[in-house]
Amino acid sequence: MIKFFEYNWKVRDEWFEWCKQFDTEELLKERKGGVGSILYTLFHITDVEYSWIRGIQGKEDVVFQFKDYNSVGKVKFLSDKLRNEIAEFLKTNFGILKEKVISVSWDEEKYTTDEILHHIIAHEIHHIGQLSVWSRELDLPPISANFIGRKLKSVHSYRSTRSSWEHLF
Amino acid sequence: MIKFFEYNWKVRDEWFEWCKQFDTEELLKERKGGVGSILYTLFHITDVEYSWIRGIQGKEDVVFQFKDYNSVGKVKFLSDKLRNEIAEFLKTNFGILKEKVISVSWDEEKYTTDEILHHIIAHEIHHIGQLSVWSRELDLPPISANFIGRKLKSVHSYRSTRSSWEHLF
Repeated sequence: MIKFFEYNWKVRDEWFEWCKQFDTEELLKERKGGVGSILYTLFHITDVEYSWIRGIQGKEDVVFQFKDYNSVGKVKFLSDKLRNEIAEFLKTNFGILKEKVISVSWDEEKYTTDEILHHIIAHEIHHIGQLSVWSRELDLPPISANFIGRKLKSVHSYRSTRSSWEHLF
Repeated sequence: MIKFFEYNWKVRDEWFEWCKQFDTEELLKERKGGVGSILYTLFHITDVEYSWIRGIQGKEDVVFQFKDYNSVGKVKFLSDKLRNEIAEFLKTNFGILKEKVISVSWDEEKYTTDEILHHIIAHEIHHIGQLSVWSRELDLPPISANFIGRKLKSVHSYRSTRSSWEHLF
Protein backbone atom coordinates (compact mmCIF):
# COMPACT_ATOMS: atom_id res chain seq x y z
CA MET A 1 0.00 0.00 0.00
CA ILE A 2 2.82 2.39 0.91
CA LYS A 3 4.40 1.91 -2.51
CA PHE A 4 1.32 3.47 -4.08
CA PHE A 5 1.79 6.56 -1.90
CA GLU A 6 5.43 6.74 -2.97
CA TYR A 7 4.35 6.35 -6.59
CA ASN A 8 1.69 9.06 -6.33
CA TRP A 9 4.13 11.48 -4.71
CA LYS A 10 6.76 10.91 -7.38
CA VAL A 11 4.25 11.40 -10.19
CA ARG A 12 2.78 14.46 -8.45
CA ASP A 13 6.24 16.05 -8.16
CA GLU A 14 6.89 15.41 -11.84
CA TRP A 15 3.63 17.20 -12.66
CA PHE A 16 4.71 20.14 -10.49
CA GLU A 17 7.89 20.33 -12.59
CA TRP A 18 5.82 20.04 -15.78
CA CYS A 19 3.69 22.97 -14.59
CA LYS A 20 6.68 25.30 -14.46
CA GLN A 21 6.62 25.80 -18.22
CA PHE A 22 3.30 27.63 -17.95
CA ASP A 23 2.19 30.87 -16.37
CA THR A 24 -0.39 30.69 -13.60
CA GLU A 25 -3.19 31.85 -15.90
CA GLU A 26 -2.82 28.76 -18.09
CA LEU A 27 -2.72 26.51 -15.01
CA LEU A 28 -5.87 28.10 -13.61
CA LYS A 29 -7.75 28.02 -16.91
CA GLU A 30 -11.11 26.27 -16.67
CA ARG A 31 -11.02 22.90 -18.47
CA LYS A 32 -13.59 20.22 -19.22
CA GLY A 33 -13.82 17.41 -16.67
CA GLY A 34 -12.29 16.63 -13.33
CA VAL A 35 -12.15 19.49 -10.85
CA GLY A 36 -11.71 22.03 -13.62
CA SER A 37 -8.11 23.26 -13.78
CA ILE A 38 -4.59 21.86 -13.67
CA LEU A 39 -3.50 23.70 -10.55
CA TYR A 40 -6.73 23.06 -8.69
CA THR A 41 -6.32 19.34 -9.44
CA LEU A 42 -2.90 19.29 -7.78
CA PHE A 43 -4.23 21.27 -4.82
CA HIS A 44 -7.27 18.99 -4.57
CA ILE A 45 -5.35 15.69 -4.46
CA THR A 46 -2.98 17.15 -1.87
CA ASP A 47 -5.86 18.41 0.26
CA VAL A 48 -7.98 15.25 -0.02
CA GLU A 49 -5.09 12.95 0.86
CA TYR A 50 -4.30 14.97 3.98
CA SER A 51 -7.93 15.19 5.10
CA TRP A 52 -8.44 11.43 4.94
CA ILE A 53 -5.12 10.70 6.67
CA ARG A 54 -6.11 13.06 9.48
CA GLY A 55 -9.49 11.30 9.57
CA ILE A 56 -7.74 7.96 10.05
CA GLN A 57 -5.69 9.51 12.83
CA GLY A 58 -8.86 10.77 14.55
CA LYS A 59 -7.71 14.37 14.05
CA GLU A 60 -9.93 17.29 13.12
CA ASP A 61 -9.91 18.29 9.44
CA VAL A 62 -7.82 21.29 8.42
CA VAL A 63 -9.56 23.25 5.67
CA PHE A 64 -7.28 24.86 3.08
CA GLN A 65 -8.60 27.55 0.76
CA PHE A 66 -7.43 27.34 -2.82
CA LYS A 67 -7.25 31.14 -3.05
CA ASP A 68 -4.34 30.95 -0.58
CA TYR A 69 -2.45 28.51 -2.85
CA ASN A 70 -2.90 29.99 -6.29
CA SER A 71 0.54 29.30 -7.76
CA VAL A 72 2.58 26.16 -8.48
CA GLY A 73 5.14 27.13 -5.86
CA LYS A 74 2.51 27.47 -3.15
CA VAL A 75 0.73 24.20 -3.96
CA LYS A 76 4.09 22.40 -4.14
CA PHE A 77 5.09 23.85 -0.80
CA LEU A 78 1.79 22.72 0.75
CA SER A 79 2.17 19.27 -0.83
CA ASP A 80 5.71 18.88 0.56
CA LYS A 81 4.74 19.94 4.04
CA LEU A 82 1.68 17.74 4.31
CA ARG A 83 3.56 14.83 2.79
CA ASN A 84 6.18 14.93 5.50
CA GLU A 85 3.43 14.58 8.08
CA ILE A 86 1.76 11.79 6.12
CA ALA A 87 5.06 9.94 5.65
CA GLU A 88 5.58 10.04 9.41
CA PHE A 89 2.24 8.34 9.85
CA LEU A 90 2.88 5.77 7.14
CA LYS A 91 6.18 4.85 8.80
CA THR A 92 4.29 3.77 11.90
CA ASN A 93 2.76 0.36 12.18
CA PHE A 94 -0.63 1.55 10.95
CA GLY A 95 -1.38 -1.94 9.63
CA ILE A 96 -2.91 -2.77 12.99
CA LEU A 97 -5.55 -0.09 12.29
CA LYS A 98 -6.59 -1.76 9.03
CA GLU A 99 -10.07 -2.81 10.14
CA LYS A 100 -10.67 0.18 12.42
CA VAL A 101 -13.90 1.97 11.50
CA ILE A 102 -13.50 5.68 10.87
CA SER A 103 -16.01 8.56 10.91
CA VAL A 104 -15.16 11.88 9.27
CA SER A 105 -16.92 15.24 9.33
CA TRP A 106 -17.56 15.43 5.55
CA ASP A 107 -19.18 12.02 5.03
CA GLU A 108 -22.14 10.38 6.75
CA GLU A 109 -20.85 6.87 6.06
CA LYS A 110 -18.23 5.06 8.09
CA TYR A 111 -15.28 3.32 6.41
CA THR A 112 -12.39 1.15 7.54
CA THR A 113 -8.85 2.54 7.46
CA ASP A 114 -8.07 0.04 4.74
CA GLU A 115 -10.92 1.28 2.54
CA ILE A 116 -9.83 4.88 3.05
CA LEU A 117 -6.21 4.13 2.09
CA HIS A 118 -7.44 2.46 -1.11
CA HIS A 119 -9.67 5.47 -1.75
CA ILE A 120 -6.86 8.02 -1.35
CA ILE A 121 -4.62 6.10 -3.75
CA ALA A 122 -7.25 5.59 -6.47
CA HIS A 123 -8.41 9.20 -6.10
CA GLU A 124 -5.01 10.62 -7.01
CA ILE A 125 -4.26 8.24 -9.89
CA HIS A 126 -7.69 9.01 -11.37
CA HIS A 127 -7.15 12.79 -11.28
CA ILE A 128 -3.65 12.43 -12.73
CA GLY A 129 -5.22 10.59 -15.66
CA GLN A 130 -7.31 13.71 -16.27
CA LEU A 131 -4.18 15.91 -16.28
CA SER A 132 -2.72 13.67 -18.97
CA VAL A 133 -5.61 14.47 -21.34
CA TRP A 134 -5.32 18.20 -20.68
CA SER A 135 -1.60 17.92 -21.38
CA ARG A 136 -2.28 16.47 -24.84
CA GLU A 137 -4.83 19.23 -25.42
CA LEU A 138 -1.92 21.62 -24.82
CA ASP A 139 0.07 19.58 -27.38
CA LEU A 140 2.52 18.37 -24.77
CA PRO A 141 3.45 14.84 -23.70
CA PRO A 142 2.09 14.04 -20.24
CA ILE A 143 4.14 12.76 -17.34
CA SER A 144 4.46 8.98 -17.56
CA ALA A 145 1.98 7.08 -15.38
CA ASN A 146 4.07 3.90 -15.39
CA PHE A 147 4.49 2.31 -12.02
CA ILE A 148 7.29 0.05 -13.22
CA GLY A 149 10.66 1.50 -14.09
CA ARG A 150 10.42 4.32 -11.52
CA LYS A 151 12.89 4.91 -8.75
CA LEU A 152 10.50 5.51 -5.87
CA LYS A 153 11.61 7.50 -2.85
CA SER A 154 10.82 5.55 0.29
CA VAL A 155 8.49 7.09 2.89
CA HIS A 156 11.37 6.52 5.29
CA SER A 157 13.42 9.17 3.55
CA TYR A 158 10.90 11.94 4.16
CA ARG A 159 11.93 14.11 7.05
CA SER A 160 9.79 14.69 10.08
CA THR A 161 8.08 18.07 10.47
CA ARG A 162 6.63 18.30 13.88
CA SER A 163 6.67 22.08 14.15
CA SER A 164 3.83 24.26 13.00
CA TRP A 165 4.34 25.73 9.54
CA GLU A 166 0.97 27.15 8.68
CA HIS A 167 2.08 30.65 9.66
CA LEU A 168 4.17 30.62 6.49
CA PHE A 169 1.05 31.44 4.48
CA MET B 1 -4.07 -5.60 -3.58
CA ILE B 2 -6.97 -7.81 -4.69
CA LYS B 3 -9.46 -5.13 -3.66
CA PHE B 4 -7.99 -2.84 -6.30
CA PHE B 5 -8.64 -5.48 -8.95
CA GLU B 6 -12.23 -5.81 -7.72
CA TYR B 7 -12.57 -2.03 -7.80
CA ASN B 8 -11.15 -1.73 -11.32
CA TRP B 9 -13.45 -4.47 -12.61
CA LYS B 10 -16.53 -2.85 -11.07
CA VAL B 11 -15.66 0.55 -12.50
CA ARG B 12 -14.81 -0.99 -15.90
CA ASP B 13 -18.21 -2.73 -16.01
CA GLU B 14 -19.95 0.53 -15.20
CA TRP B 15 -18.12 2.17 -18.12
CA PHE B 16 -19.25 -0.67 -20.40
CA GLU B 17 -22.84 0.12 -19.35
CA TRP B 18 -22.22 3.84 -19.90
CA CYS B 19 -20.98 3.06 -23.42
CA LYS B 20 -24.29 1.52 -24.40
CA GLN B 21 -25.88 4.94 -24.91
CA PHE B 22 -23.57 5.59 -27.89
CA ASP B 23 -23.16 4.02 -31.28
CA THR B 24 -19.84 2.41 -32.11
CA GLU B 25 -18.76 5.35 -34.26
CA GLU B 26 -18.81 7.71 -31.28
CA LEU B 27 -16.92 5.17 -29.15
CA LEU B 28 -14.24 4.75 -31.83
CA LYS B 29 -13.90 8.48 -32.49
CA GLU B 30 -10.31 9.72 -32.17
CA ARG B 31 -9.91 11.87 -29.03
CA LYS B 32 -7.05 13.89 -27.54
CA GLY B 33 -4.89 12.04 -25.03
CA GLY B 34 -4.62 8.52 -23.72
CA VAL B 35 -4.79 5.75 -26.30
CA GLY B 36 -7.15 7.78 -28.47
CA SER B 37 -10.71 6.44 -28.24
CA ILE B 38 -13.16 5.32 -25.59
CA LEU B 39 -13.54 1.76 -26.85
CA TYR B 40 -9.84 1.29 -27.49
CA THR B 41 -9.17 2.40 -23.90
CA LEU B 42 -11.42 -0.34 -22.54
CA PHE B 43 -9.84 -2.90 -24.86
CA HIS B 44 -6.34 -1.72 -23.93
CA ILE B 45 -6.78 -1.98 -20.14
CA THR B 46 -8.31 -5.44 -20.56
CA ASP B 47 -5.48 -6.59 -22.83
CA VAL B 48 -2.66 -5.09 -20.72
CA GLU B 49 -3.98 -6.59 -17.49
CA TYR B 50 -4.15 -10.04 -19.04
CA SER B 51 -0.70 -9.83 -20.64
CA TRP B 52 0.98 -8.92 -17.37
CA ILE B 53 -0.90 -11.59 -15.40
CA ARG B 54 0.20 -14.19 -17.94
CA GLY B 55 3.74 -12.81 -17.62
CA ILE B 56 3.60 -13.36 -13.87
CA GLN B 57 2.38 -16.89 -14.50
CA GLY B 58 5.30 -17.53 -16.87
CA LYS B 59 2.86 -18.05 -19.75
CA GLU B 60 3.36 -16.83 -23.29
CA ASP B 61 1.56 -13.60 -24.23
CA VAL B 62 -1.68 -13.85 -26.19
CA VAL B 63 -1.95 -10.99 -28.67
CA PHE B 64 -5.47 -9.66 -29.31
CA GLN B 65 -6.18 -7.45 -32.31
CA PHE B 66 -8.49 -4.54 -31.68
CA LYS B 67 -10.09 -4.97 -35.12
CA ASP B 68 -11.53 -8.25 -33.81
CA TYR B 69 -13.15 -6.48 -30.85
CA ASN B 70 -14.62 -3.35 -32.40
CA SER B 71 -17.89 -3.12 -30.44
CA VAL B 72 -18.78 -2.69 -26.76
CA GLY B 73 -20.30 -6.15 -26.67
CA LYS B 74 -17.14 -7.79 -27.97
CA VAL B 75 -14.78 -5.91 -25.65
CA LYS B 76 -17.07 -6.63 -22.69
CA PHE B 77 -17.13 -10.31 -23.61
CA LEU B 78 -13.34 -10.40 -23.84
CA SER B 79 -13.05 -8.56 -20.52
CA ASP B 80 -15.39 -11.03 -18.78
CA LYS B 81 -13.59 -14.06 -20.13
CA LEU B 82 -10.09 -12.88 -19.28
CA ARG B 83 -11.26 -11.70 -15.88
CA ASN B 84 -12.48 -15.14 -14.95
CA GLU B 85 -9.04 -16.52 -15.66
CA ILE B 86 -7.36 -13.69 -13.75
CA ALA B 87 -9.70 -14.12 -10.78
CA GLU B 88 -8.74 -17.80 -10.64
CA PHE B 89 -5.12 -16.77 -10.36
CA LEU B 90 -5.80 -14.09 -7.76
CA LYS B 91 -7.66 -16.65 -5.63
CA THR B 92 -4.47 -18.68 -5.33
CA ASN B 93 -1.86 -17.85 -2.77
CA PHE B 94 0.13 -15.72 -5.18
CA GLY B 95 1.52 -13.68 -2.27
CA ILE B 96 4.40 -16.11 -2.09
CA LEU B 97 5.43 -14.95 -5.57
CA LYS B 98 5.66 -11.32 -4.46
CA GLU B 99 9.41 -10.96 -4.83
CA LYS B 100 9.76 -13.32 -7.78
CA VAL B 101 11.52 -11.60 -10.69
CA ILE B 102 9.63 -11.71 -13.98
CA SER B 103 10.76 -11.30 -17.59
CA VAL B 104 8.23 -10.60 -20.33
CA SER B 105 8.57 -10.55 -24.11
CA TRP B 106 7.59 -6.88 -24.57
CA ASP B 107 9.96 -5.28 -22.03
CA GLU B 108 13.72 -5.58 -21.64
CA GLU B 109 13.61 -4.85 -17.93
CA LYS B 110 12.80 -7.38 -15.23
CA TYR B 111 10.25 -6.62 -12.50
CA THR B 112 8.99 -8.34 -9.39
CA THR B 113 5.46 -9.73 -9.31
CA ASP B 114 4.63 -7.13 -6.71
CA GLU B 115 5.75 -4.27 -8.97
CA ILE B 116 3.76 -5.69 -11.86
CA LEU B 117 0.58 -5.96 -9.79
CA HIS B 118 0.98 -2.32 -8.73
CA HIS B 119 1.56 -1.40 -12.37
CA ILE B 120 -1.58 -3.15 -13.63
CA ILE B 121 -3.73 -1.44 -11.01
CA ALA B 122 -2.37 2.09 -11.56
CA HIS B 123 -2.51 1.61 -15.34
CA GLU B 124 -6.26 1.02 -15.34
CA ILE B 125 -7.16 3.77 -12.87
CA HIS B 126 -5.09 6.24 -14.93
CA HIS B 127 -6.85 5.38 -18.19
CA ILE B 128 -10.25 5.54 -16.52
CA GLY B 129 -9.41 9.09 -15.44
CA GLN B 130 -8.97 9.91 -19.12
CA LEU B 131 -12.41 8.48 -19.95
CA SER B 132 -13.90 10.78 -17.33
CA VAL B 133 -12.62 13.88 -19.19
CA TRP B 134 -13.95 12.62 -22.52
CA SER B 135 -17.29 11.97 -20.83
CA ARG B 136 -17.52 15.62 -19.77
CA GLU B 137 -16.56 16.64 -23.30
CA LEU B 138 -19.66 14.68 -24.37
CA ASP B 139 -21.61 16.66 -21.73
CA LEU B 140 -22.27 13.55 -19.68
CA PRO B 141 -21.40 12.79 -16.06
CA PRO B 142 -18.61 10.19 -15.83
CA ILE B 143 -18.79 6.97 -13.82
CA SER B 144 -17.80 7.65 -10.22
CA ALA B 145 -14.19 6.81 -9.43
CA ASN B 146 -14.85 6.56 -5.69
CA PHE B 147 -13.36 3.54 -4.03
CA ILE B 148 -15.39 4.00 -0.89
CA GLY B 149 -19.12 3.41 -0.95
CA ARG B 150 -18.91 0.68 -3.61
CA LYS B 151 -20.16 -2.84 -3.17
CA LEU B 152 -17.23 -4.75 -4.64
CA LYS B 153 -17.72 -8.23 -6.03
CA SER B 154 -15.14 -10.55 -4.52
CA VAL B 155 -12.70 -12.35 -6.82
CA HIS B 156 -14.04 -15.50 -5.18
CA SER B 157 -17.40 -15.01 -6.86
CA TYR B 158 -15.96 -15.09 -10.38
CA ARG B 159 -16.49 -18.46 -11.98
CA SER B 160 -13.72 -20.58 -13.35
CA THR B 161 -13.33 -20.83 -17.12
CA ARG B 162 -10.87 -23.50 -17.93
CA SER B 163 -12.16 -24.28 -21.39
CA SER B 164 -10.94 -22.53 -24.48
CA TRP B 165 -13.26 -19.75 -25.66
CA GLU B 166 -11.20 -17.98 -28.28
CA HIS B 167 -12.98 -19.80 -31.09
CA LEU B 168 -15.98 -17.58 -30.30
CA PHE B 169 -14.35 -14.75 -32.24
